[in-house]
Amino acid sequence: MKTMGLHDLALVAPKAFPHADATARAAGADDLLVSARISEDLNSAIADCQYVVGASARTRAGRWPILDPRTAAETIVARLPAEQCAIVMGPEQSGLTNADLARCHALVNIPTAPEYRSLNIAMAVQVLCYELRMAALARASSEPLSQPAHHEAPPATAEEIEGFQVQLENALVESGFLHPSHPTELKRKLRRLFLRAGLDRKEINILRGAIASLGKKP
Amino acid sequence: MKTMGLHDLALVAPKAFPHADATARAAGADDLLVSARISEDLNSAIADCQYVVGASARTRAGRWPILDPRTAAETIVARLPAEQCAIVMGPEQSGLTNADLARCHALVNIPTAPEYRSLNIAMAVQVLCYELRMAALARASSEPLSQPAHHEAPPATAEEIEGFQVQLENALVESGFLHPSHPTELKRKLRRLFLRAGLDRKEINILRGAIASLGKKP
Repeated sequence: MKTMGLHDLALVAPKAFPHADATARAAGADDLLVSARISEDLNSAIADCQYVVGASARTRAGRWPILDPRTAAETIVARLPAEQCAIVMGPEQSGLTNADLARCHALVNIPTAPEYRSLNIAMAVQVLCYELRMAALARASSEPLSQPAHHEAPPATAEEIEGFQVQLENALVESGFLHPSHPTELKRKLRRLFLRAGLDRKEINILRGAIASLGKKP
Repeated sequence: MKTMGLHDLALVAPKAFPHADATARAAGADDLLVSARISEDLNSAIADCQYVVGASARTRAGRWPILDPRTAAETIVARLPAEQCAIVMGPEQSGLTNADLARCHALVNIPTAPEYRSLNIAMAVQVLCYELRMAALARASSEPLSQPAHHEAPPATAEEIEGFQVQLENALVESGFLHPSHPTELKRKLRRLFLRAGLDRKEINILRGAIASLGKKP
């Protein structure tokens, strides 16, 4: 939860709390355990919530709408901060009861593989928290999370690329790799592959130095 | 992995394998451990791979493109099944080395909260596997309109690229362009620019022929 920027943890009727194992496993996130709200039952845990989504292994819409994690997260984030929202996770073995589900506005289902559906609760929590973070970041900022590679130097100009290609072709004609009278197809292939690399000026200089070095007579 | 429909696990130089703890924790997914491929080093683990994404805590674009998990998964799934793709996860404590990263076409970063970035490797694997499943499900239900450039030959595998890079580096050491004792930074620059080009097998062969031709003594 904490790695995904979430802090508000509510525990319903925990068997033991606090517990040394839980505190040890929480590592640097034990502040979330310390500040966790403890409730006797689900009703009091979600009392102030206006939109409640229950995690469920159900995959067919029945009496509740079933959302995939992305849609659930986007729906929740769209309601924030005007509304208090909660995701309810059931106990590891049994999941949420029908009485629990009756408190939920919608169910969220993580699309597990049909041949092996047993996602444990820690992993399910991670996936849902991750989608909440992605939805929150998407709303907070128009900055894309993915970024193209940063170049150390300005992208090479067509003229710089041409200078390099001509040097390469001359060296390859001289070495006998390119036939002087019909080198066209191989030249085109070489041009295409270096164009695809999106070379910068520094890289052009490195390649030119390398070719000059390789081609020089001993 | 198995809950998200993934099966092909490769372990690089595991401290202990098989291990009773791992088998016990795998529960009903121990078949993935049984069928895991064990490699001495990263190069042999990814030898047949044509697109390799490294998991990284880096958030600023540097010399590699940085993808968020969703974009990384969509990029990988778009390349399947024509290409062999891999996601490389580093050791829990230290992460991937620069030498490991030099084998990657791109990095993937999970957008953790600035105040608590320590996502453990199990959770990171879960998030990435989940995004791969979401991307695979999305593709199964719709055809993309954009299409990548058509290659004349299959994309080069990591092993084919490595063979070419080693030949290039040896030739450049012999010619005096690379200093034999501290060639690292220039080598990395050369590796990166050729990785960016997304070379196919035919292009690798052309480049290898060209280097052999340039380097030969008259």
